[in-house]
Amino acid sequence: MNKGISIAGSGNVATHLAKAFFDAGARIEQIFSRNLSHAEALAQKVGARAVDRPELISNDAGVLILALPDEAIEPFAAEVNATGHFDGIVVHTSGTQPLSALRMFENSGVFYPLQSFSRFSNPLMKEVPFCLEAVNSETLQHLTSLASLISENVREVCSEQRAVLHLAAVFACNFSNHMYAISADLLKDAGIDGSILKPLIRETANRLTDIHPALLQTGPAVRGDGSTMEKHQQLLENYPVYREIYKMLSNSIVSAKEKTKK
Amino acid sequence: MNKGISIAGSGNVATHLAKAFFDAGARIEQIFSRNLSHAEALAQKVGARAVDRPELISNDAGVLILALPDEAIEPFAAEVNATGHFDGIVVHTSGTQPLSALRMFENSGVFYPLQSFSRFSNPLMKEVPFCLEAVNSETLQHLTSLASLISENVREVCSEQRAVLHLAAVFACNFSNHMYAISADLLKDAGIDGSILKPLIRETANRLTDIHPALLQTGPAVRGDGSTMEKHQQLLENYPVYREIYKMLSNSIVSAKEKTKK
Repeated sequence: MNKGISIAGSGNVATHLAKAFFDAGARIEQIFSRNLSHAEALAQKVGARAVDRPELISNDAGVLILALPDEAIEPFAAEVNATGHFDGIVVHTSGTQPLSALRMFENSGVFYPLQSFSRFSNPLMKEVPFCLEAVNSETLQHLTSLASLISENVREVCSEQRAVLHLAAVFACNFSNHMYAISADLLKDAGIDGSILKPLIRETANRLTDIHPALLQTGPAVRGDGSTMEKHQQLLENYPVYREIYKMLSNSIVSAKEKTKK
Repeated sequence: MNKGISIAGSGNVATHLAKAFFDAGARIEQIFSRNLSHAEALAQKVGARAVDRPELISNDAGVLILALPDEAIEPFAAEVNATGHFDGIVVHTSGTQPLSALRMFENSGVFYPLQSFSRFSNPLMKEVPFCLEAVNSETLQHLTSLASLISENVREVCSEQRAVLHLAAVFACNFSNHMYAISADLLKDAGIDGSILKPLIRETANRLTDIHPALLQTGPAVRGDGSTMEKHQQLLENYPVYREIYKMLSNSIVSAKEKTKK
């Protein structure tokens, strides 16, 4: 790991990764963004140089991390490859793009942090699971060392498993957040401050252990409390979409319970 | 608050409340359960007497807390009332039952802790929102003092608002937990240890602030990433129920985004 790291991207993933590597004492060589001022803003925080054209990406870095939107990864990789300057390891950080999106490089890999990064928070990087994949074992070893600089949770995950992980994360993170949003809507319309639910939401997430979450299921559906479910659907009379969601999820909870019994 | 507290019930709510009051230095007089050994197990932990028949409920307590299943509250209250022994305040802890379920008592109220209590965890009682309601202001004042012994988050909530709160809690807690359960199912079938999602689940819950959760929404639906959603639905080919849930929630996220834009 004598050569440093360059990062393409200036969004949330790029920012959190760059800062974590910088804090861990790694050298960040370049930050690339088509928008030079975005690149400069991040580069300045991590002692790196800002560049805004693929042909300016230098060979000083041993690893180039593409922390870009899914659809930008392959075209950008092709542009970098066309310049012929960079001969190090190229990785992307996507949960959904295959390793083969970077097949034009001899040493390529996937460097997927299984976390939702936003401007609003700062998850503990050392707990973030890094899911790695590489075209050869030398590259995988290099990426493992790199990820281990910032995380204590590093593992090899193939493209097929990564696709399932990403899908599971949509349920566990994106759809849970939508449940929070629906509850906030209902409370707002009833003139109740949404923050009242925060302790309950945190408890529900933080009490998860190694047992299957279905065994921690509470509420009217798993109790078979039809009278409460009926009242709830009446309360949702003016929310047709939320009412359908209520029915579908309640039915699914009931089915899951019956499956567990078998 | 010279007289102590008696609690009817020996389930999770009864247990967590009894212990919290005991730890706060309040006197617990009696624990009632139809199953005497259940009553004894809890009574012993909080220095109380165990009773298993409504007519044994003494007038030593100033407040009788009915921490019972919804459907048991009104019949049990009627039984206690029929004995004529108890002339203190009677409250229930239900999110869904109206105050009027206890109308046979002169001084009645609702003492609803907005939290999910289970055997598996120990939520910080002082952060639990206690939603109170009472038939008169003197009773409300008494209940406020009582709740303030164990929580820093005590407020008055009428029966109508409480019903909406309970419904919102089903989305925020029960349905979120079902999302965790679905993700655990998908990972298990793919041979991946479900604990890999824990940091993401915690981050999603813990990053909630005072802004509307819809503004923290991430994932393919809110990004309008049709190609990823298509791939996800293919992965769900053998999970027809989860596939329908995926479609419905993704559509709802898209609608919510359009509403926010307006």
